[in-house]
Amino acid sequence: MILDGGRRVLVLGGDGYLGWPTAMYLSLRGHVVAVADNFAKRGWERELGVEPLMPIGSLEERIAAWREVSGCDIEMHVGDLVEYPFVESVVRSFGPDTIVHYGEQPSAPYSMIDVGHATYTQANNVLGTLNVLFAMRDHAPDAHLVKLGTMGEYGTPNIDIEEGYLRVEHNGRSHEFLYPKTPGSLYHLTKVHDSHNIHFGCRVWGLRATELNQGVVYGVETDESARDPRLATSFHYDEVFGTALNRFCVQAVVGEPITPYGRGGQVRGYLNIRDTLACVDLTLANPADRGELRVYNQFTEQFSVSDLAHKVRDAAAELGIEARIEHAPNPRIEAEEHYYNARHTKLLDLGLEPNLLGPELIRSMLRRIEGYAERVDRSKLLMGIRWAPEQRVGTGS
Amino acid sequence: MILDGGRRVLVLGGDGYLGWPTAMYLSLRGHVVAVADNFAKRGWERELGVEPLMPIGSLEERIAAWREVSGCDIEMHVGDLVEYPFVESVVRSFGPDTIVHYGEQPSAPYSMIDVGHATYTQANNVLGTLNVLFAMRDHAPDAHLVKLGTMGEYGTPNIDIEEGYLRVEHNGRSHEFLYPKTPGSLYHLTKVHDSHNIHFGCRVWGLRATELNQGVVYGVETDESARDPRLATSFHYDEVFGTALNRFCVQAVVGEPITPYGRGGQVRGYLNIRDTLACVDLTLANPADRGELRVYNQFTEQFSVSDLAHKVRDAAAELGIEARIEHAPNPRIEAEEHYYNARHTKLLDLGLEPNLLGPELIRSMLRRIEGYAERVDRSKLLMGIRWAPEQRVGTGS
Repeated sequence: MILDGGRRVLVLGGDGYLGWPTAMYLSLRGHVVAVADNFAKRGWERELGVEPLMPIGSLEERIAAWREVSGCDIEMHVGDLVEYPFVESVVRSFGPDTIVHYGEQPSAPYSMIDVGHATYTQANNVLGTLNVLFAMRDHAPDAHLVKLGTMGEYGTPNIDIEEGYLRVEHNGRSHEFLYPKTPGSLYHLTKVHDSHNIHFGCRVWGLRATELNQGVVYGVETDESARDPRLATSFHYDEVFGTALNRFCVQAVVGEPITPYGRGGQVRGYLNIRDTLACVDLTLANPADRGELRVYNQFTEQFSVSDLAHKVRDAAAELGIEARIEHAPNPRIEAEEHYYNARHTKLLDLGLEPNLLGPELIRSMLRRIEGYAERVDRSKLLMGIRWAPEQRVGTGS
Repeated sequence: MILDGGRRVLVLGGDGYLGWPTAMYLSLRGHVVAVADNFAKRGWERELGVEPLMPIGSLEERIAAWREVSGCDIEMHVGDLVEYPFVESVVRSFGPDTIVHYGEQPSAPYSMIDVGHATYTQANNVLGTLNVLFAMRDHAPDAHLVKLGTMGEYGTPNIDIEEGYLRVEHNGRSHEFLYPKTPGSLYHLTKVHDSHNIHFGCRVWGLRATELNQGVVYGVETDESARDPRLATSFHYDEVFGTALNRFCVQAVVGEPITPYGRGGQVRGYLNIRDTLACVDLTLANPADRGELRVYNQFTEQFSVSDLAHKVRDAAAELGIEARIEHAPNPRIEAEEHYYNARHTKLLDLGLEPNLLGPELIRSMLRRIEGYAERVDRSKLLMGIRWAPEQRVGTGS
């Protein structure tokens, strides 16, 4: 049953960069929020010797701090989505009407380290999501799954990217397909596999789901996380978990070159972390119908990687930081010049008011990062993970 | 390196219904053949209490019998494709120039039993194939992967099904995509996931692969398996591993009703098991290029399930067997009336000479089955596996 007011929202991956701010944001807005996490991400950080820019307390400590600061409670469940009994018990005991699912290994480079990391990523993400679908089928068939996908599922086709579906006219007949996907890493492939499995759950079991095919997220903080240092989110600047703009800002602050990969003509969709939260909130207020998989392309602006690098350099200059751009060898196998035009109107239609990327926003990120500059480990800005043992064996097309 | 004459062919899943006959067929034609299997299928049979119609010796016994009958050797490797060290060691030690990959859990009903069987099937199939791709990348980059897919990957779209790719014109631009897939079970989804992963391996690592999107296979035996009872292949008639025509023939022979599911208007592509072997042989003689994923739709004729039921009833009548047709409640959630027109010309262009489904062929199947009628366990003809706990919650569209 979907309620009109506050909902019972289960946030999977609630200890993460997006999951933790989402949990705070939703609890502040009157929803009853539970988070589930197995702290796998903290294990990957230890494995790779990387750390978030800001010190992050335990989830228990963050929940206690949030209660102190906001008066809002967040319920905590610790366990692994790949273990069905855990998923089943959380869904049964909490009884969510909305499940916001961030609970996956989120890094393309991590998935490309070697065969072990690749199979781990595919197993972790695909089987965890499949368990969630079964738990919904059997214990919460009316709940709404809000699943974080990625714009990277689409790749860079030579036609416009639509929001989730593509109507094809062929030999005088017509059919609407899930938009065909050509992703660029074994991590991105897990999101494609998830999309197909979720589509099946909707078609065959009558589940309701919305996929948020998210662009690259940037931002150091949200209104909630900024209220107390103990509420910080796990902002990464390393090659594995740091996204382009976040990494570039840290490079500028510590006086390292800004390193777009390859020629830098790779165009992607981007959005502010504050907009991620707003999009999730709009999505849960507008659930998909039973049997429907809705798909939104969740980003606000398109930039090339070179554009981004120049924006950071220019904003840094205004703060008196002289940053230089050095194109690094591309560790990925991908087109570096390509057509890119991705539709993203559905969330705007629901009322999203984007926080666009202007110089002032980048300056505020740079200033915030400056306070933690001594924590930056420069050796983690470029870590040498490669898409293929010898590069350029394929075309990447 | 691709040789002109005999090749070094590694058959994954070499103990199975198709894998074993393929291994014999190829070894007889001058290829050096190794098989790998972990005998998982025999475990699933024990789990479900089902058995092949004909008694099947151990793989070791079958290989010895084949050596005795034909003088041909087949090399045996026992292990699990989900364990990378096994895959790596087989590929390194045997040094295949062709890998024929049947090594997956092949049953849609098995994948739909419950969450455990679903996640097992997805892990087994997807991770095993991913391991094969990595072993090829690192130890046999020039080898040709011949991967068994299924026509079931496509589902039943309202436009013509092409062979693997679809060129889409959209807003004045054009792009050729992997044909978008809408499969009908969590097993079929594993094949879709495999296709995307293999496509990535070809695009990014420069591997060469051909996917055989196979229709429903029928047939009791091949020329090789018929040479000695010890060489029989594991023909199934049960609900889980038995395919439509095979099951219908057994039902007719033992005096049970022939049971098409639902209205019986489900149209699929079919082929004779002898044609499977011929198709694999043609494919390995015509390897894909480096970086190319070639896709063939491997079937020879389209029939509705009702058509098939009537063909079996009529052929049985000519042998004096009075069979009746009883439409069973459909355990699957699928369209029972739909457009279906699937292209299948590429293998014909390579020289495939199809064994079409005529009354004489069905009569020969019925006669062969009669010799084993006392081994049939009628309780396994319908086993009650359902696609959803309560049927018809979704539209199946």
